[in-house]
Amino acid sequence: MTADLIIRRAGETDVHAIVAMLADDPLGTGRESLDDLTPYEQAFAAIDADPNQLLVVAERNDEVIGTLQLTFIPGLSRRGSLRALVEAVRVAAPARGSGLGTTLIRWAIEESRNRGAVLVQLTSDKTRTDAHRFYTNLGFENSHEGFKLKLT
Amino acid sequence: MTADLIIRRAGETDVHAIVAMLADDPLGTGRESLDDLTPYEQAFAAIDADPNQLLVVAERNDEVIGTLQLTFIPGLSRRGSLRALVEAVRVAAPARGSGLGTTLIRWAIEESRNRGAVLVQLTSDKTRTDAHRFYTNLGFENSHEGFKLKLT
Repeated sequence: MTADLIIRRAGETDVHAIVAMLADDPLGTGRESLDDLTPYEQAFAAIDADPNQLLVVAERNDEVIGTLQLTFIPGLSRRGSLRALVEAVRVAAPARGSGLGTTLIRWAIEESRNRGAVLVQLTSDKTRTDAHRFYTNLGFENSHEGFKLKLT
Repeated sequence: MTADLIIRRAGETDVHAIVAMLADDPLGTGRESLDDLTPYEQAFAAIDADPNQLLVVAERNDEVIGTLQLTFIPGLSRRGSLRALVEAVRVAAPARGSGLGTTLIRWAIEESRNRGAVLVQLTSDKTRTDAHRFYTNLGFENSHEGFKLKLT
């Protein structure tokens, strides 16, 4: 029997586990470093202090096995609609293929609805073709092109 | 001779002009309504109160001719990087083709850099092919697929 899954707001003690998941990823591995958590802890403090940020972890048997970040963005478009942005979705390697990604995104959709958002949006690297199918299956429309400009 | 262009933080008295620009657009026309500004004014208050939101207008000869919204998002990814999201970019019809869009986006990139962001990101509807060329020419990489899920 599997223990209950808990999805909860992340605390500072979760930072190491979250960063480990961000790093354990084909694109993330070159971008993250577990040697020094200081920049991550500073970023966590900024996330935690902002009422429009919600960083969550999925936990089972006291082990962090998934994460995502929700950002709520007030805007004038669509008659003054609130939108929700999903970033940094990760499932720990041992939990992949278990449906946890689906559970996490469904949770994010429900939380967005509860907060009054009328739209949930996210981008996914063009190389992550499995993720594109995953989001389409969850009802997302692949309606936009996503552009990024690195400043460093 | 053209008068000086000013790019500045939007105030409540700019809401009508901004919404008029949002509505004067192939995709925006069905989504906006100038009949009742109340929901827009409420959204403006939320934007204005959030230090991570920066709604700006471009003004020339005391006339608002462009707008965009910048959102600063703290995150753990990329060693605790701050990212900037650009939304709701519009140029008023009489000012189109004047290079104002380029000026606005360059301004947004510079402002993002000044705030310490390491990445500027945005999505553009797949039907806006002119906009895609525009962003690519400004140095953005079309590296992502953009997914949206409407909740209403």
